[in-house]
Amino acid sequence: MINAFDSGKLDHLPDATAALIRRRERVLGASYRLFYDDPVYLDRGEGVFLYGPDGAAYLDVYNNVPCVGHCHPRVVEAVTRQMGRLNTHTRYLTDMVVDYAERLTALFPASLSQVMLTCTGSEAIDLALRIARSHIGAMGVIVTENAYHGVTTAASELSPSLGDGVPLGVHIRTIPAPDSFRDDPETMGETFAAHVRAAIADLKRHGAAPAALLFDTVFSSDGVVTDPIGFIKPAVAAIREAGGLFIADEVQPGFGRTGTAMWGFARHGVEPDLVALGKPMGNGTPIAGVVGRPALFDEFARRTRYFNTFGGNPVSCAAALAVLDILRDEKLMENAATVGAYMRAGLRDLAKSFERMGDIRGDGLFIAAEFVSDPVAKTPDAALAGRVVNELRQRRILISASGKAGNSLKIRPPLPFSTEHADMLLDGMKAALAAA
Amino acid sequence: MINAFDSGKLDHLPDATAALIRRRERVLGASYRLFYDDPVYLDRGEGVFLYGPDGAAYLDVYNNVPCVGHCHPRVVEAVTRQMGRLNTHTRYLTDMVVDYAERLTALFPASLSQVMLTCTGSEAIDLALRIARSHIGAMGVIVTENAYHGVTTAASELSPSLGDGVPLGVHIRTIPAPDSFRDDPETMGETFAAHVRAAIADLKRHGAAPAALLFDTVFSSDGVVTDPIGFIKPAVAAIREAGGLFIADEVQPGFGRTGTAMWGFARHGVEPDLVALGKPMGNGTPIAGVVGRPALFDEFARRTRYFNTFGGNPVSCAAALAVLDILRDEKLMENAATVGAYMRAGLRDLAKSFERMGDIRGDGLFIAAEFVSDPVAKTPDAALAGRVVNELRQRRILISASGKAGNSLKIRPPLPFSTEHADMLLDGMKAALAAA
Repeated sequence: MINAFDSGKLDHLPDATAALIRRRERVLGASYRLFYDDPVYLDRGEGVFLYGPDGAAYLDVYNNVPCVGHCHPRVVEAVTRQMGRLNTHTRYLTDMVVDYAERLTALFPASLSQVMLTCTGSEAIDLALRIARSHIGAMGVIVTENAYHGVTTAASELSPSLGDGVPLGVHIRTIPAPDSFRDDPETMGETFAAHVRAAIADLKRHGAAPAALLFDTVFSSDGVVTDPIGFIKPAVAAIREAGGLFIADEVQPGFGRTGTAMWGFARHGVEPDLVALGKPMGNGTPIAGVVGRPALFDEFARRTRYFNTFGGNPVSCAAALAVLDILRDEKLMENAATVGAYMRAGLRDLAKSFERMGDIRGDGLFIAAEFVSDPVAKTPDAALAGRVVNELRQRRILISASGKAGNSLKIRPPLPFSTEHADMLLDGMKAALAAA
Repeated sequence: MINAFDSGKLDHLPDATAALIRRRERVLGASYRLFYDDPVYLDRGEGVFLYGPDGAAYLDVYNNVPCVGHCHPRVVEAVTRQMGRLNTHTRYLTDMVVDYAERLTALFPASLSQVMLTCTGSEAIDLALRIARSHIGAMGVIVTENAYHGVTTAASELSPSLGDGVPLGVHIRTIPAPDSFRDDPETMGETFAAHVRAAIADLKRHGAAPAALLFDTVFSSDGVVTDPIGFIKPAVAAIREAGGLFIADEVQPGFGRTGTAMWGFARHGVEPDLVALGKPMGNGTPIAGVVGRPALFDEFARRTRYFNTFGGNPVSCAAALAVLDILRDEKLMENAATVGAYMRAGLRDLAKSFERMGDIRGDGLFIAAEFVSDPVAKTPDAALAGRVVNELRQRRILISASGKAGNSLKIRPPLPFSTEHADMLLDGMKAALAAA
């Protein structure tokens, strides 16, 4: 795992931190891993800041879940109000789930007019897979080579970024992700589509067939690839020619983070068949879902009984509705565009005098800075990226790394991030680069 | 689906209800189904009552999720306080997840000393399957013939109650559930174990092997089977003889509902290898998890990276901690034992003059009343059960039905259910039986 704490190294940590880690390791399964060489102990959050029990403030430039800011009072109030009034499931009639579904689907193209709500992005991906596979009558799914789509059995079988310990499914095919730092922008889209076609051919050669092409529309875990706009079109066309569906994983880019559009697919001018939503949807309250074409949902419902006990509960919907209100009222998508552009320009300035920061890319407040040991050969340098992440942490600035080689910084703050906050990051980055 | 509304029959409904159903059908996927011939429109909940927008009060004798009562003020307060303070994930250190994990695991046998937290029971079952299958190195799972274990791809493949439209997995074997109404109590446990052994033999005959025996320890969807105490022991021994694990699905019986013990497996004096928890855990706040033996978690972590973004977040843990406090302070397990016994006695009295209510069974506040067309032949009568459910709904008492034939009433109220509430149910039941 990128940026993982080695639990053998407790000795140099503050006593309170080490003591809590020891308690954690006794009662939580060993899969629980901490970030950083020096893990961050948190007690409080507000806006784009997190605070330790000692009052130390950390600038959050990493967390996309609290998209409208940590502990936003309007979300807290909406949840408190609804929790004190009614929290039940969708086999009774309640206003809240319908109000939210109407508001949410209004943000999509007309063809994607219905939603099914779950609690996590993993559940949303898993449901989208069930719908697509049932519709096509085939199990094949094509994903990128460092994709991450979730932790259910089915989602993990098509999440190669989880590593060799998690076997890919028999009918899963991986293809190289687009790489705007190394590929020719003129041909990148066609190359990606050619990989899709090759995977389709390979599935067919094995007597299988593709149900879907599934990718994150900003390729987060493949290192963040956003441009050129429209480059995903040929790949989407290729899966449709073969009779398969295109499932957009919007768990990362969704809800305005890219600044350019509410959804990553919309930036590129394509319409998916199914869209999986997650992380930022409820600002931390567990809610996720699948938006899609009614014909697909109708067919699935005819064949299959599906009910998600907590999915669409009024409290989660109240949180999610407040998020939509805040995104609109505080113009956070617009802010993401402005501040993101400012931050990328600042990072590019820094890169001029630090040539091993070889590429700055992204859109809005989803930014990657890629480190290389040789700027000409573009050789990935994960160790350097890791040192920068930990140097920033020592300066109380939280980010992480991403990509197949783990050599790209992942810069992805809560959306109320201002140019002042960007300056704090840029100052910290300058010092971190000097020290790393 | 049992007790489902037929969406073609809108005309006889109140205008506001019909209007909301029409809006719902436009924006929610067709899988969303409502209960009852006359769906219930809800606006508010408190304790064991739910209220419509018109103020009409419904006695809730069905919902197990709000286990400490609808909108319990201590849960609302705990969530409000934590949401305004910090909500983040487990890759940072926070107190709340450790505090909760310590409190939760203290309620288990010493061998089951660790937990991994998820958001839903489906995710918990799916994770338990991943751990078991990875440990054993085999895919086989044995479940009961009308089992329900969740809606992820992997969970649905071993949930035969979802119907023929959801194919069982290749290595899933179903066995007849125990049936305390028809089986000889002296041999029921051995018969159940013999079915387990036969399924193991069949898996082996197909070149496969059993990873686990998985069942709900009160067999909720098989019609609720709780007695005789200890009858599951031979089946658990059978899977272990074959080298497989026993996974207890405690999503339904867990957290004291049976009155006799905190967990269904504990009633029977067995120790599972893994335990899946869900629904009542956070009183409606999405939280679930797997409790198990540390050696299993250690092995899984060595092989597999697993992280659940919302799993173990401080807000969900605060809700779950409040639930444990309330269960203890309000002595709700003890209440379940007392009121459950009172209710079963009252139902048995009613059955004396209504012999088609052929069996009353269960423990604590998990009770089934089984309807038959012929009390001697014990022929299931689902239509009668359905009429009773709808007659009760007309009297504003909410229950549902269960079992392979759908002929058993499922009586499963929030735990602060008093003898006065039981009297309301019994009066309503008497009238419903007369009218059905």
